[in-house]
Order: sequence, then C-alpha cells, then structure tokens
Amino acid sequence: MSHTSIFENRRERFYDWMAREGISLVMFEDTEGRRDPALRWFSGQPADALLFLSVDRRALLIPWDINLAKQYAQADALIPYSEFDRQANTALQGAAAKLKIPLGSKIEIPALTAYPAFLRYVGDMMDFDIICRDQGAGAAVEKLRAVKDDEEIKLLRTAAAITNDLIDLVEQKVRSGKIKTEFDAARLLETEARKRGCEGMGFETLAAGPDRSFSIHAFPAYTRAEFGGPGLSILDFGVKYQGYTTDVTLTFVREPVRAQEKMLILTEKAYTLALDLAKPGAEAREIAAVVDLFFTLSKKHMPHGLGHGIGLEAHEAPAIRNRKDNHWILEPGMVFTLEPGLYDPVHGGCRLENDILITAEGTEVLTKGRIIRL
Amino acid sequence: MSHTSIFENRRERFYDWMAREGISLVMFEDTEGRRDPALRWFSGQPADALLFLSVDRRALLIPWDINLAKQYAQADALIPYSEFDRQANTALQGAAAKLKIPLGSKIEIPALTAYPAFLRYVGDMMDFDIICRDQGAGAAVEKLRAVKDDEEIKLLRTAAAITNDLIDLVEQKVRSGKIKTEFDAARLLETEARKRGCEGMGFETLAAGPDRSFSIHAFPAYTRAEFGGPGLSILDFGVKYQGYTTDVTLTFVREPVRAQEKMLILTEKAYTLALDLAKPGAEAREIAAVVDLFFTLSKKHMPHGLGHGIGLEAHEAPAIRNRKDNHWILEPGMVFTLEPGLYDPVHGGCRLENDILITAEGTEVLTKGRIIRL
Repeated sequence: MSHTSIFENRRERFYDWMAREGISLVMFEDTEGRRDPALRWFSGQPADALLFLSVDRRALLIPWDINLAKQYAQADALIPYSEFDRQANTALQGAAAKLKIPLGSKIEIPALTAYPAFLRYVGDMMDFDIICRDQGAGAAVEKLRAVKDDEEIKLLRTAAAITNDLIDLVEQKVRSGKIKTEFDAARLLETEARKRGCEGMGFETLAAGPDRSFSIHAFPAYTRAEFGGPGLSILDFGVKYQGYTTDVTLTFVREPVRAQEKMLILTEKAYTLALDLAKPGAEAREIAAVVDLFFTLSKKHMPHGLGHGIGLEAHEAPAIRNRKDNHWILEPGMVFTLEPGLYDPVHGGCRLENDILITAEGTEVLTKGRIIRL
Repeated sequence: MSHTSIFENRRERFYDWMAREGISLVMFEDTEGRRDPALRWFSGQPADALLFLSVDRRALLIPWDINLAKQYAQADALIPYSEFDRQANTALQGAAAKLKIPLGSKIEIPALTAYPAFLRYVGDMMDFDIICRDQGAGAAVEKLRAVKDDEEIKLLRTAAAITNDLIDLVEQKVRSGKIKTEFDAARLLETEARKRGCEGMGFETLAAGPDRSFSIHAFPAYTRAEFGGPGLSILDFGVKYQGYTTDVTLTFVREPVRAQEKMLILTEKAYTLALDLAKPGAEAREIAAVVDLFFTLSKKHMPHGLGHGIGLEAHEAPAIRNRKDNHWILEPGMVFTLEPGLYDPVHGGCRLENDILITAEGTEVLTKGRIIRL
C-alpha cells in the first residue's frame, strides 16, 4: 500500500466524521510548545505546519518549511506559511477562502486553542461559526488514532524488535561492566538505535542509578553518576522508528536489601495482574483501579498512572489510569504501556514497563522490558 | 547569594505586580505538552508541577513528584499533586482554600488555558473572578524573564564558554576527518557537553549534511549521512547548563559553487548588519525588518525570524522578528540569538547564529558561531 493511499484512507474516515457532524472545515496545528501528531498521521508532514481538511474532501497543508513539506508531505495543496505572515489567524482566513468554505459554515479549531486566542479567531471570522470543544474533531482523531491500522502495527513491531535488541545489549553491557554510568547506558541506546535505522529516541532517555532512582522521572535525565551499582537503577527509554515510539522501563538490581526486594516483588505482581486483566472489552480505568488497590492493600502507593497509549506520541490514547474522566475501553489494535512502579526516598525506585498490543484473543506483549538481577 | 533568596527576590517583584493589578492568586502550570519555565524561575522546580503565588506573598508548589520537589524546589509549602487527584481544577480549588483566598477575589490562570478548560474553571469556581488573558500574569513574567538577572547572566556565560569549547572541538574533528557523519557531530556534542557538567542539550541537535541542509530544521534531526562533504553542512546546537541554554549554528563549507558562495556572503553580511543595529533602545522588529529588506534587495528570502531570546527556554522573549505584533525594545540584560540564513532545494542551506547580550554600551557576543571553510 502506498503512503499516499494510507494518508488518504485516514482522511476519508475523518471526512465521514465531518459530514456526520456538519463541520465544513477543521484546522490542525503543530507548533513549538503544542505538537499535534494528527498532521503526520493525516499527511506525513513531520512537524511545524497547519493542516486544513474540508468536508468536500480536500487537504490543504500550510508548512513553515516548504522544502521539507515537499519532501515528506502528501496533501491536495501546499502553501508556505510565510504567505500568511506566519500567523495562524491569517492562515485560517486564507484557507477558508482558498477552499471556498461557504459563509456561515462551521469551522472547528483545535480544542487546545487558548481562551484569548479563541476570542481573536471568533472576532476575525464573524462570518463563520467558529467551534472549539473537547469532544470534537481532536477527540475524534484521538479515537481513530487509538486503534492502530495495519501499517502502524507493522511499524510498532519493527520499533519493538529494535527495542528488544537494545534491551539485550544493554543488559549484556551492564553485566560485563562496559556500562558503568547513567551516561554510558543512555549513549549506548542513542547510538545503537540510530545504527538500526531509528529517527532517534521517542523521548529523552531516563537513566537513574541507585542514588537518583527515587524520582519517577529522574532530573536531569541522565548524568555521569554510577548505574547498576548496589540498589535499584532505572532505565526508561523508547526508540522512534518512522515516527512510532516504543516505551519500556528496565530496573537493574544489585544486592537488594529486604525493603527493595519487597518493592520489586510487588511491582512484578502488579504488572502480571494488569496484564491478566487487559483484554478486548476491558475498562482501562478498572485495570488501573485494581492495581492501585493492590498497592494500597500492600501499604504502598504508586504515584503515577498505570500506563498510556503509544504511537506517534510517547503518551497518547488510550489512557490507562484510575481517574474518573477515563472512559477508554480496550479494543483490538490498541497499543499501550503497562508500567507499575514504586519509589522511596531512601531505597530508590523500581518500575517495570512493557508495550502491549490488544488482539482479538487478548494481548500480545511486544517488548521484553524486565527486572534484571545483577 | 543563596538560591532561596534568588527565588524569593524574583517572587517579590512579581508580588508587587500582583498587588498593583489587584490579583489575589496566580496559577502557573508546567505539564507535558505545555511547559512553563516560570516554575523553575520562581522556585527551582524543574518540571511537572503547579505553582500558586498569592498576593499576601506566599508560594505553594503542587508537584507531580514530591521526592524530586523536596530536592530541588523552594516554596513556602509543598503538597503532592496526587492529593488533588492530579487534576488542575481540583488543585486550584485546593490552593484557593489552603491560601485562604477571599471569595470574590481575582484569580489568574495561564493565558494558554484552552477555551473548553477555561469554561470548566469558571464553572467550578463561581465564587471567584477567574481571569485568563494574554497581557496578564504570563506576559508580566515573560517581561521580567526577558531581562536576565546577575545569576542568570553568570549561568549563560558559563554555558557560552562550554559552547565555545565545543565549537572549537567540533571544527577540529571535522577538519581532521574524525567527524564524518551527522551522527558523529551530534554525538560528540552530547558527550562533551555532559562531560563539562551540562544537564544535556538545550534542544535536539540539528546536524544536516549537504544533502539535507536545504531545510530550516532538518528532519530527522540527524542521521548517518555524510557531514562536511562538498557543499553546505549545518550544525545547530545549544548546551543546557543549570537550566540555561545557548543556541548557535555553524555552517561548514567545502568546495562551494558560485551560488553557495553568494548565499554565504549574504548571510554573513546580514549577520553583521543585524549586530550593528542591536543596542539598548533599538526596536527588535526594526532590526529584523532591515535584514528582511537586505535579503529582498539581494533577491533572496529568509523563511524564518531573525532571532529569539534564550534562557530557561531555547525560544523565549524577546522575539527578534519582523511581525507587527512584535513590540520588544532591546535593553541591557537581554540575551538573544541573531541567526540569518538562506536555504535552497538544490544548493542546500547556510545559517550563522550567535548569542548576544545587550549591555549598557551596546552588545557582547557571547558565542563564537561561525562559517567554517574546510
């Protein structure tokens, strides 16, 4: 299947949604500080652009860098952002004119549009009905993107295979003493991921030796501190392959004290519990609630969510957390992490994270994240 | 000067602003997808938290990771985010209660609050006057942050010194043939920056050999393609030292053809022109307009802004671009980039970027970015 038809196929499904909703034009924006992978998903454009989809099934891309867009993007028309003074308001007006959107039509702008900016859009486009809402176009795309298509699952499988290679490699080099510091671990991953054809990492690698593993996300992400020494060391990373990211966490353990052993056992049990509960039709919130309860009964507390979808973003739908606004139901094609963890200011932290694909039958664990006893 | 007093001093200046504006409580939020370095600037907290400042001069920090906050942050009170179900609305209500904000008071939330979220804040807090505006608290902090204090200038000088070391090192290794690929260049910088005590890079290093330098920001950021071969290669990087980032661009040139020579000469002239115009009292927009005009008269077009402030963010105030909403006037203590560049689908791209400090006398060029002829 060519890339053109993949993108067109995705847009077709969205145009159907637009027709049902009576929306004439939808604007997507990917800009510094507010990324929206919908652009890459719909058109192949990696970043820094506006995308306009009209209900009569045309896609207009307005990129910041026209040379880059010509190389990567597929749309019915391309216009450089500089023609609109690099202002989103001006571009929206230009797109409505170019696509001949009838006056009075509904135009939907991103749900994350800031309140003051929303007022400006409305003021500038009094002849249209400007819509900005949580359960609108953005949510519809999020829902489409939450269930991966065949092309996406293929890419995620490739990313997972590379990830699994790197897990084995990093384990071997920690065991052999070649990796001594957080920096050594992070650099090995960066180097080897790119050698294997990755665009880069899915997010900044977090490598935290025993002195720093107490925090959920180590800050700074990695340093020249010891990694893999006595106690608990955490390595949280993902590779990005043609836009798709994995996300795994390994915990390395050396000479654990009793309190650390207990944390490890509980984390592994929580992981198995979560994996057993994950299947088509399961409520994501319910799985996370069971794990939270399991930790509470063990007199522990997990200070973060149980997991999250992965794909073009390191964190996307479906959410796997115990929050009352979480209504996701698992279905085949969803890919997400399960990552229970416990953290202690004295004993350090441990986390076990893998990437799970929901299949018709149940689950397939794509990655081989694990607790590694040295 | 202790860190506590630096943060307190910054907060004091802001409390004065709040008192003048009649705002009782201001909320700042740093979260994935919407970072706000105001948190680090006011409290030392590196990321993932809410910060509440009340007009009676109290600072309440609500971090996602309480262990991390205890290590880094300075505030009058800390409460874990999990106590508020990790929901910003709930945390705002909790903060107003904890800080005993009188009913009917003005509470300002971030200017980037999405329109649907704004409606929820208003609905949840009918007893208060919820304010969300562009020219409010966020803009006031941006203005304070645009003029660096002594501590910040010290950190930026250290970051610039490390950057200059790395520029020399990378030049030497490209000349000696040790750096052959984009990946080699990027990895050297990552490795050496961390060796010199940096937290990491200020942004993902962009290394683009002759085949990829045509785009403003190469995608992917770097690959295993040749770097420094015949034509134009671009290396755009910054180091992050105790939160503060530099931002420089080098262009490496080998065996340029006539069209490439012309691009280089124009870029260097534009840079010198911009630097000559930069001084206290100059209008940032005017400088950018002169450079745009210079390129236009040379029958070229620069497809991006001339520069931007740097500090806790790689892009912050003041903007140095030719857009009618740009009203920044340069003043001593401002630190920003000047980065003219030209890009051609056939001949590749060139850019020259350095970091400039405005002083009472004029300018000080902190970094040694340059065009390097091989």
